[in-house]
Amino acid sequence: MMKATVYVTIKQGVLDPQGVAVQGALHSMGFQEVESVRIGKFLELNLDTTDRAEAEERLKAMCEKLLANTVVEDYRYELEG
Amino acid sequence: MMKATVYVTIKQGVLDPQGVAVQGALHSMGFQEVESVRIGKFLELNLDTTDRAEAEERLKAMCEKLLANTVVEDYRYELEG
Repeated sequence: MMKATVYVTIKQGVLDPQGVAVQGALHSMGFQEVESVRIGKFLELNLDTTDRAEAEERLKAMCEKLLANTVVEDYRYELEG
Repeated sequence: MMKATVYVTIKQGVLDPQGVAVQGALHSMGFQEVESVRIGKFLELNLDTTDRAEAEERLKAMCEKLLANTVVEDYRYELEG
């Protein structure tokens, strides 16, 4: 059993409207020190496997095919266990 | 200038339908080793402040008031710079 954590972020240079909205909300609540907000997601996956190299290769495939939209998003992952 | 990263996760015991949907999609794509998926979000905030203690206190307030729904979500944060 291995545990993988995948972090998906919007690429630098791509507009993050959700982050802009949250920044606006924080400003209107009095948190003026917030200069920018960018929002990403992370996924925690439990993998029923013991082969680390294979798990990593398949995890990369999951990211490319489903978890991240590589046109506008970057991803990175951590694998443990 | 400080950089804060806030991680928001759904509490243990609360159903994560988005994670269940992603797990189902991965299974149907042949990734049978995926036993469970839970999805969270993270926010990267740039804060125009130098007082670490105050920044942390205000960051906690942002999480409680806007960034996390503490009824069903947990949050943790890292502060650097």
